[in-house]
Amino acid sequence: MPQQPLSGIRVIDLTRVLSGPFATMMLADMGADVVKVETPQGDPVRTQGDLSHGFSWYFAAFNRNKRSIVLDLRKPDGREILGKLIAGADVLVENFRPGVLAEMGFDQARLDALNPRLVVASINGYGSTGPYVDRPAFDFIAQAMSGFMATTGVPGGDPMRAAPPITDLIAGLYCAFGVVSAIRARDLNGRGQRVEAAMVNGMVSMLAYLSSEYFATGREPERTGNDHPIASPYGLFHTANGAIAVAPATVEILAKFMRELSLSDVLERDDLKTSEQRRAARVELNALVDARMKLESQDYWIDRLNKAGVPTGKVLSISEMFSDPQIAAQEMAIDVEHPGHGVIRMTGFPVKLSETPCVIHRPAPDLGADTAAVLAEIGCDAAELERLRASKVVG
Amino acid sequence: MPQQPLSGIRVIDLTRVLSGPFATMMLADMGADVVKVETPQGDPVRTQGDLSHGFSWYFAAFNRNKRSIVLDLRKPDGREILGKLIAGADVLVENFRPGVLAEMGFDQARLDALNPRLVVASINGYGSTGPYVDRPAFDFIAQAMSGFMATTGVPGGDPMRAAPPITDLIAGLYCAFGVVSAIRARDLNGRGQRVEAAMVNGMVSMLAYLSSEYFATGREPERTGNDHPIASPYGLFHTANGAIAVAPATVEILAKFMRELSLSDVLERDDLKTSEQRRAARVELNALVDARMKLESQDYWIDRLNKAGVPTGKVLSISEMFSDPQIAAQEMAIDVEHPGHGVIRMTGFPVKLSETPCVIHRPAPDLGADTAAVLAEIGCDAAELERLRASKVVG
Repeated sequence: MPQQPLSGIRVIDLTRVLSGPFATMMLADMGADVVKVETPQGDPVRTQGDLSHGFSWYFAAFNRNKRSIVLDLRKPDGREILGKLIAGADVLVENFRPGVLAEMGFDQARLDALNPRLVVASINGYGSTGPYVDRPAFDFIAQAMSGFMATTGVPGGDPMRAAPPITDLIAGLYCAFGVVSAIRARDLNGRGQRVEAAMVNGMVSMLAYLSSEYFATGREPERTGNDHPIASPYGLFHTANGAIAVAPATVEILAKFMRELSLSDVLERDDLKTSEQRRAARVELNALVDARMKLESQDYWIDRLNKAGVPTGKVLSISEMFSDPQIAAQEMAIDVEHPGHGVIRMTGFPVKLSETPCVIHRPAPDLGADTAAVLAEIGCDAAELERLRASKVVG
Repeated sequence: MPQQPLSGIRVIDLTRVLSGPFATMMLADMGADVVKVETPQGDPVRTQGDLSHGFSWYFAAFNRNKRSIVLDLRKPDGREILGKLIAGADVLVENFRPGVLAEMGFDQARLDALNPRLVVASINGYGSTGPYVDRPAFDFIAQAMSGFMATTGVPGGDPMRAAPPITDLIAGLYCAFGVVSAIRARDLNGRGQRVEAAMVNGMVSMLAYLSSEYFATGREPERTGNDHPIASPYGLFHTANGAIAVAPATVEILAKFMRELSLSDVLERDDLKTSEQRRAARVELNALVDARMKLESQDYWIDRLNKAGVPTGKVLSISEMFSDPQIAAQEMAIDVEHPGHGVIRMTGFPVKLSETPCVIHRPAPDLGADTAAVLAEIGCDAAELERLRASKVVG
């Protein structure tokens, strides 16, 4: 069973920077032939981050398994070639602002005429309808507009962003999920359709019980830092050699936690019977827990508490995480040979399929590395390629 | 084209709480028939959160479009019924700790014997191999172990968790993406396979350039709060009537930003030419920006800066976000009639398909509401159902 889920699926990828390239990488990891269409300057990420061995490791990490062609879409000949690529493709993915693709001459009517089986996927900041449709999008703003930041951070402090650009990646993942779903719909009924994922919408969908509690009660959730809004004790505690995170999220697990600390009697106190009482006594309870915690090491408590069924772990830095034996066992860092640029380390595959797994079938491409091959596939002969190169339509 | 991408796909859903129910909700939203198999006590989330009109809105928000049967898997007859359900299903999803499903009598050999076309999806904390495979998982710990928390928060402060349980939802979304991909592989080759998504792995995959920069340079990223690690000025600024988030992430956008503030001359200063210089002068630059910002309102700057191409927005609270006209235009809050429990408001669909969109085809089920119907579908007659009910195998 060497075939991957998307083997034989051709994706024309007009995206740049992060949300779109992440979506098309998910499709490429699943076996799709992703043709990354770049301007003569290339995806801006090619020049971002550290350029070890002359290649951006950031670019490499989000563009593995793709091919690259350079096409100047400001030129009529460039747009004509894009039309031919679209006619022979299964999926088109773009992350322009809504309306830009149509302005380039590829509105839905044209796309339908070129290829009625095409799945057209768009990633944007706010969606393609509504008052903010023309606003430029950026992760930090999407975090702010989604309600995410307002709930994250310490009470009395500023609302806090997540450091990684998670709204880009979440929207990209929703897009990939939508595209595979739309491909299956097309397998069944023969017709393509539009798929859309917006950064703000994706982040809103991740608010979980913060949304449902607001809808049910009308009450705004408060920022609680690393404390659980209801459970106490819960959070970061301080052992003999550093902090650990402990999550006794239910009364059953709390009982186990306190038993392991020889603090079971605390839960018998009349003033600590209910979760409201324990939450009100958070400072006192944390002090009692820390007094026990500091008698032993991080590793001691992590081992003991997990064995007792209490979810516990270290707050790992990026370097500690990637050195962790669990991350190694899960192959979450992989080394990929990039001819001319050496071995580049990148994040592994977050979803594991047993029989048709995600694999590296090619490294991230140099700019325009596949222009000639892709143009030959749409019937462009050597003379025509030479003409297009000379007029700087392709590169 | 009324058919949805997963119409006709039967999912047996053994999951509980959050990561698994979110994954199977994604599948149900795409048209799958999800049969939620619950213990006689039901999914714990049924009793969590606010029970308006006798029903948990938190449960409702993660279990729409599913059916519910009650099956006691501690009883041999219960496990026999599960075997029959598996034999007739396309997908099995579980979020037990690794090994628990096998202990219940459903190891991979048994599953293969029951149904070689079955896609078996597992969501767990750390993956099913490696030293931490037996540890209990919880979102807070997965945030800590993934490197996410260490990068989030203010310099000198504690590492900060994201308030929503994003590692559950990200793993659930990866699982749903993996399941649809595996279904398509099966469409092509006729065989099922295993799909796995782990909470820590999913969060690691979202670190983006924080990982690639670490790999390229060996340097640990520092916590920078709401400041961009490189760009300055950038972050939260203070207008006449409240803060706004501004993300001038490139030099081009920074030039536009400063022009709108009538501060273009600042960028001409010899001591502020490079991004290193501007980052070093962050406090001074922020003060200059704030001095202009406070002359006008939030709405004034948001309108003006976005029109100039500078990504800008408010930090919206949950209630402000759900009252926002953009969120309304995108239908990110929907009202669903739950017979006997009134109308329950919940988050809408984060991925939009134009021709086979996600829809509500049924509200979240009461516990065991579909036991009789589902058992009838696997050939159980009325007398047998009665016997099973009397012996409390089903409910």
